[in-house]
Formats: sequence, structure tokens, C-alpha cells
Amino acid sequence: MYAIILAGGSGSRLWPLSRELYPKQLLKINTDKSLLEMTYLRLLKMIDEKNILSITNTKHFGDVKTQLSSIAHNPILLSEPAQKNTAPAISVSVKYLLDKGKDDTVLVVPSDHIIKDDKCFADAVYNAQKLAEEGYIVTFGIKPQGPETGYGYIKSSKKLKDFGLKVDEFKEKPDLKTAQKYVKSGNYYWNAGIFMFKASVFMEALKQHAKDIYDTLQEFDFTKNDNIEFTKFDKMPAISVDYAIMEKAKNIVNVPLDCGWSDLGSWDAIYEINKKDKDGNVKIGTTQVQECKNSFVYSSNRLVAGVGLEDIILVETSDAILACKRDKTQDVKKVFDKLKEIKDETHLVHTTVYRPWGYYTVLNQGKGYLTKMICVSAHGQLSLQSHNFRSEHWVVLSGTARVTLDNKNYILKPGSSIDIPVKVKHSLGNPYEEELKIIEVQKGDKLVEEDIIRYKDIYGRVKA
Amino acid sequence: MYAIILAGGSGSRLWPLSRELYPKQLLKINTDKSLLEMTYLRLLKMIDEKNILSITNTKHFGDVKTQLSSIAHNPILLSEPAQKNTAPAISVSVKYLLDKGKDDTVLVVPSDHIIKDDKCFADAVYNAQKLAEEGYIVTFGIKPQGPETGYGYIKSSKKLKDFGLKVDEFKEKPDLKTAQKYVKSGNYYWNAGIFMFKASVFMEALKQHAKDIYDTLQEFDFTKNDNIEFTKFDKMPAISVDYAIMEKAKNIVNVPLDCGWSDLGSWDAIYEINKKDKDGNVKIGTTQVQECKNSFVYSSNRLVAGVGLEDIILVETSDAILACKRDKTQDVKKVFDKLKEIKDETHLVHTTVYRPWGYYTVLNQGKGYLTKMICVSAHGQLSLQSHNFRSEHWVVLSGTARVTLDNKNYILKPGSSIDIPVKVKHSLGNPYEEELKIIEVQKGDKLVEEDIIRYKDIYGRVKA
Repeated sequence: MYAIILAGGSGSRLWPLSRELYPKQLLKINTDKSLLEMTYLRLLKMIDEKNILSITNTKHFGDVKTQLSSIAHNPILLSEPAQKNTAPAISVSVKYLLDKGKDDTVLVVPSDHIIKDDKCFADAVYNAQKLAEEGYIVTFGIKPQGPETGYGYIKSSKKLKDFGLKVDEFKEKPDLKTAQKYVKSGNYYWNAGIFMFKASVFMEALKQHAKDIYDTLQEFDFTKNDNIEFTKFDKMPAISVDYAIMEKAKNIVNVPLDCGWSDLGSWDAIYEINKKDKDGNVKIGTTQVQECKNSFVYSSNRLVAGVGLEDIILVETSDAILACKRDKTQDVKKVFDKLKEIKDETHLVHTTVYRPWGYYTVLNQGKGYLTKMICVSAHGQLSLQSHNFRSEHWVVLSGTARVTLDNKNYILKPGSSIDIPVKVKHSLGNPYEEELKIIEVQKGDKLVEEDIIRYKDIYGRVKA
Repeated sequence: MYAIILAGGSGSRLWPLSRELYPKQLLKINTDKSLLEMTYLRLLKMIDEKNILSITNTKHFGDVKTQLSSIAHNPILLSEPAQKNTAPAISVSVKYLLDKGKDDTVLVVPSDHIIKDDKCFADAVYNAQKLAEEGYIVTFGIKPQGPETGYGYIKSSKKLKDFGLKVDEFKEKPDLKTAQKYVKSGNYYWNAGIFMFKASVFMEALKQHAKDIYDTLQEFDFTKNDNIEFTKFDKMPAISVDYAIMEKAKNIVNVPLDCGWSDLGSWDAIYEINKKDKDGNVKIGTTQVQECKNSFVYSSNRLVAGVGLEDIILVETSDAILACKRDKTQDVKKVFDKLKEIKDETHLVHTTVYRPWGYYTVLNQGKGYLTKMICVSAHGQLSLQSHNFRSEHWVVLSGTARVTLDNKNYILKPGSSIDIPVKVKHSLGNPYEEELKIIEVQKGDKLVEEDIIRYKDIYGRVKA
């Protein structure tokens, strides 16, 4: 059995915790594992890591690679050069498997959902596998937990096979009234975007129902290298696999899934899966709550206090705060879109950015300067680099810094500082176990992350 | 006519904007003047600055002095060495005036209230003055704007004099039902803590009704110096002027006041006085509001977003966030008290602290280090100082720094840095108009504000 993990989504509905460049699947909300990591670990119980293929896009490649590398020895990860919805992502991944001679059953899963009962999920997958081997394309329909208007539905009234139901129809996201009717009837399931099929069966379905994708796919040859070239990939239509295949194919079967699934698609969903106190509140981080009911108070840095709140979501991050009525959490996307429109970067990145060697936090910035705290993990090493437009000044706060500057090496202890002039090659490393923290003061007229020329990098961020 | 401004309160109900060390009277909420400054300016329209006496306590002395000095040439400011409620503060101030030979009518006002119509207020004061000259102790009763349970009430049904009403009784803070009865009857007024009397009349009232205060007062002699000695002041009972005098004296008269008064004693009161948009929202700072109603969204630093909120107060400061139902804003004090109890310093100070020369913001801190941004105003000058337990490292971000270190002078431009070793005398100044910003990295085992020995200070913070 093979698996494809779709890890290319860019979350807006969990803003301000999720950002365009740090989407939902990468988040660790009240856990030590991200949704992506949990997804991977769930599959590892069934499938060997050399048979699990993840696909993301260039924007998230670094972060996805870092997370997968923390749990797998040599995770296979493809990078899409453009965001094109699910059909191209799945199609390219299937072509990859076929090119590598792996024509077998393939499980396709999103990377940003939660499933509480892994065992129950595995059972459903094994059942689906039998159907997939018979030539069916399996879609896993979730038993609705309420009249959700945010999902598509699958109408399925009759049994088709031992473990499967006949698919009568795929339904678009309904309005509340229709959703209520669906749930009441008992014949509708949520479309969760989890699928299973034989690779060659899927390819045949593409040939029949999505000829443009099928034809473009013939230009890819993964027997030679694993790169997805932009010029080829860009010819793909941006279309979901539901529109492209599922709604058209005849050999579809629905395997119902009732394993504590949630797509955590809103703050309210996050509230729902968390443990509540006696007043129905969920509190994460440094919080103070007085006479609140059924509310969610989340602090990632600062003290967050709630007084007399009812059904309120309150989320604090280092650069943005959200307060939202629980039944309006779907509208958080509107704030995200508005920020994008007015070019407020708070939709895009956090002030804290994770890197393979650790992380940095922007402390403050103004005309001509920018101050960061840089935290380098044990034995972490920033690339050998230079900047065309900025000088830097480093002050060690704690730990020990190994600095290379213009081919000379320096060991700096707390309180020591060093100047990095414009255009001079330099690197920063932490030779020891103790975390290294430094303050970096950047000076220059053009202070952007992109002003970086990398010469050497232990995390493979320099192309040979 | 003389005036006494009571500027010693320490606010808890406007947390997180007010702190124990930065109380309500010092705040500038959506204005360029603080409540204290507005109070002083209101009095200046009637009274010469040499006849206005302010009294605060040692904790707030520096900040109060800085604010008053920005609007008066030579403001008179007494400093209480302990916090003892209003009766001792007013009594000592009256003794000060008498010792300086100033026996005339005295207006007593809190420093943390707002009065919209200064002209209307002045008219009431001039009327009260006439009564005070006749030997009455005037209390200004506010016409109630609703059944507030947070104030004491004055029962006053009959006319006593041209501008005054007979005071039947002072009433404690009532419950809601009683407050509603009071307001309906039309014979009750809010006790706003604004008074007027002849200095000698007040002294006589003390002698009669508060003998302990009167006796202790005889030990003070302001003809010699203006210091309030702790050993003497500490003998004073901590009691309000209402309990000590007003509720007992017979020569009390109520001059009603209807001039747009508010004590801004809660976030809801702040909401009420601000201009609202068509949905009844008040937005201050960087905010994003979607489908909110009758809410108050306040950002002092970061982006604050509200979605679907109704009757919610949302306040962001650099180190704490509050979300509160509008009718529960009186309970914010409970959060403040809780923080005090668990020794969370967020009740005490802000991460941004104002000083006569500018301000500093704590950017981050950890074991053995603390990083600040220091901002020095045009021609500002930090005291010549040294530290016993910490070294400092300064990096100039913008502007020009004049540094004195061990009797040598240095001029530092952006990007330059300098080390300040432990125990070495140093000072930092801004010789020019452009604001000076530096990053200060402190290193040491004991990093506290109190580790400072001052040798010279242009703001009088070094005692001769």
C-alpha cells in the first residue's frame, strides 16, 4: 500500500495562528506534534516510510521538510512550483509512483485534519483497500456530526459491497436548511477529501474524465529526476479532484468513516476538540479568566485575560490578536482577505519564523534598522552567506556562538559582540548543546529577508 | 482661590492600560493630554499656577512631575511617603497652604476624572466659592446619569442657599435596586469627591471631627521645607475625607454639577465618552472589525481584529490583552487583584516605561540577559550613573548618541556600538532634534531597575 499526503494548503481560517507562509498543517496547537506530523505518524502505523509520498509547494517546502525529517529518516517530498488545487497534486504524485514502478493501491490524505481513533481509521483503510484492489475509487464519507455548511456532502443510500455504499451524488456546500435536511435523512456524508484507488485505475479515470491533466502528465518523467518543472506544471488546470474525477467517474464507492474526524477548519472546531473546564472554557498558555463561559482563550506569548465572556474565541500571537464570536469563526477568513487586500503583512508571516537551525523573532523595526532575536538550536548552523544591502551587528545573549567572518573564526560568549559589514561572507553556528541566543541589529536602506546570498548550507538550501 | 489636585490614585479598573505604577490619571487614551494634564489645564483657566498644589505619592512622583512640567513652569507638587486615602492628603495640603500664609477658599479635585464642559464647571466653582466664603464646606453633587452602583450618593432635597442644596445624608454605594430608587426620586446626587472650603474652616472641621488627623498635622511645619516626613505621615489614619469630615460636619452644602462629568472608572465609561461608528463601535489604533456591534477595540501596538463581537471591550497592550463583556468591566479589578496575588508583574508595570528623557521598552529577557529599546527625545539626557551588577552593550539604531564613559566622550552614529562595563560611570544623551533610538543588551546575574547609582541628573533625580 502507498500513501500520498497533500501538504500544500495555505490556511486562512485559523488566522492569526496560521499564516499564508505558516499554514494549518504546520501548527502545533496545544500539542507537541503538528497536524502534518500526526498525519504522517498515523500512516507510518500502516505503511513503510519509503512508500509514503508527501507533496507541498515551494513556499512551504522548507518547513514541511523540517517537520517530516524530525519523524522520518528520509521522507519523500515533492515540491509543486505553483498552487493548483488537488487534482494536479494527486495526479503528479500518482505519476511519480507509477514511474517508480509502484502500481498498487494508493491512500490519499490531507495533512491538516485530525482523526482521534487511529485504529478505527486503519480498519476503514484496510476495508477500502479491498475495494480499491477490485478497481473501485474509494471516497471516505464522514458521518456528519451536525448540519455543517462548510463541507461538500456525498449522497449514499444503498449498500454496494461489504464495506461500501453506492455513491448517488456529490453535493456542493449546502445552506443551513439543506444541511439540516441532509443530516436528518441519514443518507448524506461529509466529503473529507480522503481517497483510495489503484494508481493505474486513477490514471485511467484521468484519461477518461480529465484529458487535459492526463495529457500534460505524459510530459513528466520521474524515472529521470524528482523535480516538477514549472513550465510543465503550469499547464495544469487549477481544479479539485472532486470536480475533475469523483463527480464524473462511475466506479466510485463510499466507505463511511466514524473515527473522530475533524478538519479543524475554524477556531470553533479547535475549541470543540479541546478539553473544557467546568464552565466549558478552554484555556491555553498564560491566561486569566473571570466568569467566562464556553470560551476559548489562547495565549502564545503575553498574558490574556477574559472577563464575563460567553462563546468567545480569543487568540493572541506576537503580532496580532483575534476576538471572535464562536458562531462567526468562518468569517475570520474575511479579516485575512482584508489584510491581504490592504497589504498588511500580518496575514503572511509571523514575527517568529522557524528555520531548520532554530527560529528568529523580529523584536522591532524602523526606518533604517531592524532588530531580531535569533535562537540557534544545539549544533544548529546558519548558512554561509552575505548581504548586499545591510550590515549586521550581533550580541550574544546566552550560549556560545561560533562565527565565521571573512574566512576567520571567532568564538563569542554572552556579552560579546561582532560587526558583520555589508557584502562580507559570514556564518553563525552553535557548537554546543545549550541553546544559543543572539540579538541581531540590521542596518541599511533595504532590509528584506530576500537580501541573502547563500554559499554553503548543511540543510541543502544551496543548489549545487 | 487655591486648588488642590489629588494625584495619588493607583488604577486597577482600566487594566491592562493602567498599572499600579502607571495609574489612570497619567494615561492618554485617544488624546494627547492625560487626565491629570486636562485637570491642571481646566484649573489654570481659573487659578494661577502658583496657587495650584498637586499631591501624589513617591511611587508616581516622577511621572506626575514630568507631566505637570510639560504644561506649567514651576508646578508645586507634594509627595506622600505612604498611601493613606484622601483625608490625610487633603489635610496635609491644607496645612501646607496655611503655613505658606494662604488662607483662602480652596477647591479640591481628583486628577483622574473628565469634565466635558469646562465653562459650566467654572460657573459652578464660582458659585461654590461664594458659599465657601460664608463658611460652608461645599461638596459638588453630580446629577446621576443612571443607577450607578459604583458611587456613593448624596441625598439633597431642599434648597439651602441661592446655589446650594441642603445635604440630608451621605449614602454608601447602593445595590442596583436602591440606586434605581435614588435616581427615580430625583433627590440624590453622585459623590464625585470634588470639594470647596476655606482652609481655616476645613482645619476647624478636622479639629472637631478628626482629632487624630488634626493633632498629627500640628507636627508638620511647611514654613521650613516642603517634605512630608514618613515618620509623621505614617501616624495618619487611612481614611477618606467623606468618612472623616463630610458625613459628620453640619456646615455642608451641595452645589449640583451637570457638566458632562465622568470618572472613567471602567472600560465601559471610556467606551461611552468616545465617538462611535454607525455600528456603535469605537476603534482605536490598528484594528480590523467585521460584523461587530457596540464594541470597543483598542490597539496600542499590534493588530487587533474583532469578528462578530457584541458589547465587548478588547484592549491590547505590549504585554497583556483584555477581552471583557461591557457590563462586566467593574470586574476587571478582580483580574488585577488576582495578578497581584500570584505575583504576576503585569498588574504593576508596562513593558514600556516613560521617563523624563523619553521611554524604554523591554524587548525580551531571559536568564542572565535583558534587551531594551531606549528612545531618547530631542536633547534628552539620562543621568550619569553606574551599575553594580550588570554590564551593558549599546547599539545605535537611529539618531545620534552622545555617550560619556569613564570621563571620555563618544559620538555614536547608527550601526555603532559600545560596551559599558560593570561599575563604570556612564551617561547617554541625545544632542540633536532627531529622536535617538538604541538597543541596550544588559548582562548579569541581577538585572533589576534598582541597580542604579545616579551621580548627576538634569531632571533633579539626584538629591544634593
